[in-house]
Amino acid sequence: MSTRSLENLTARLNRLPGIGIKTAQRLAYHILALPEEDVEGLSSALLDARRRIHYCPVCGNFTEEELCDICSDPKRDPSVICVVKDARDVSYLERMREYRGLYHVLGGTLSPMDGVGPEDIRINELIERVRGGKAAEVILATNPDVEGEATASYIAKQLKPLGVKTTRIAHGIPIGGNLEFVDEITLFKAIENRREV
Amino acid sequence: MSTRSLENLTARLNRLPGIGIKTAQRLAYHILALPEEDVEGLSSALLDARRRIHYCPVCGNFTEEELCDICSDPKRDPSVICVVKDARDVSYLERMREYRGLYHVLGGTLSPMDGVGPEDIRINELIERVRGGKAAEVILATNPDVEGEATASYIAKQLKPLGVKTTRIAHGIPIGGNLEFVDEITLFKAIENRREV
Repeated sequence: MSTRSLENLTARLNRLPGIGIKTAQRLAYHILALPEEDVEGLSSALLDARRRIHYCPVCGNFTEEELCDICSDPKRDPSVICVVKDARDVSYLERMREYRGLYHVLGGTLSPMDGVGPEDIRINELIERVRGGKAAEVILATNPDVEGEATASYIAKQLKPLGVKTTRIAHGIPIGGNLEFVDEITLFKAIENRREV
Repeated sequence: MSTRSLENLTARLNRLPGIGIKTAQRLAYHILALPEEDVEGLSSALLDARRRIHYCPVCGNFTEEELCDICSDPKRDPSVICVVKDARDVSYLERMREYRGLYHVLGGTLSPMDGVGPEDIRINELIERVRGGKAAEVILATNPDVEGEATASYIAKQLKPLGVKTTRIAHGIPIGGNLEFVDEITLFKAIENRREV
């Protein structure tokens, strides 16, 4: 085979999530036609990101420095900690530019079926952080699915003895949403959590 | 920003065709979580493919060797040359495992609107190849779209004086297709090219 390096590239692209064999081929052919410096740039961007980025030892978010941007920002409010499943959730929440507290990235959710227990995600680190720190409120912002809910209630129970205020993000109809297309559980939550206007 | 290398990776992935910003982010986060050797593998597969693969000087297909697999295979029939738009088309046609002739990759199709004229694609190389070689038939397998048809008729006209047999791939209803969903031009071609059974 005189195109071994092309087959190898296609196979490796194909291993990425959401990249089927046809997309992998299309990408590989595209890459062959790129200027060499662009391919060098992509190639070293891959290694660079993988080698430089690590977890912030305080909150578990991604960083290249000792602490992440948020933990090392003196303007953030250390009295509120928002607990999320993974580092991507931090970037989603930061996008709204409203939240000024800190984060705690769990690195997963409890899932007994997949063998993920409390010691496999960063729950103890959260407890220690609350015990030793200035947090007055912990917001549980795990996803509103089975694992996310179970994880939120487990953490709430663990935090109870520490006397910290523990809250859960609100569930309801998304802004711009339509009653017709919202599932019953969301609808029920929206009615249950109704507010006086 | 303490995640500069992550932003850079995301931006570079986002430049690839069909990779939107959300997909680029998802891929970048996935890559951060991969074992370092897998990222090294992908990183060097990119450079390797780009640096090793070049065009076969005879047919224009991709190869790492002097000549491509097909041109250097003594079992291929040099009396038939199939003309295609790009190297990817060669891999599509090879998949059927029926065609035993050679190929000629044009590297594009005539497109006056985009400023692509006969000298911008490998038409002269084809003429020279037919003039100096053993080809008895040239199959024009450019796509059945405006540019592909125009390119096929242009090449047919150029080949006429050389006395080589020139054919065009058949148009018709795809196998497993349905009259209901086939456009009128295809339907017309299918009727026009009907065969006795």
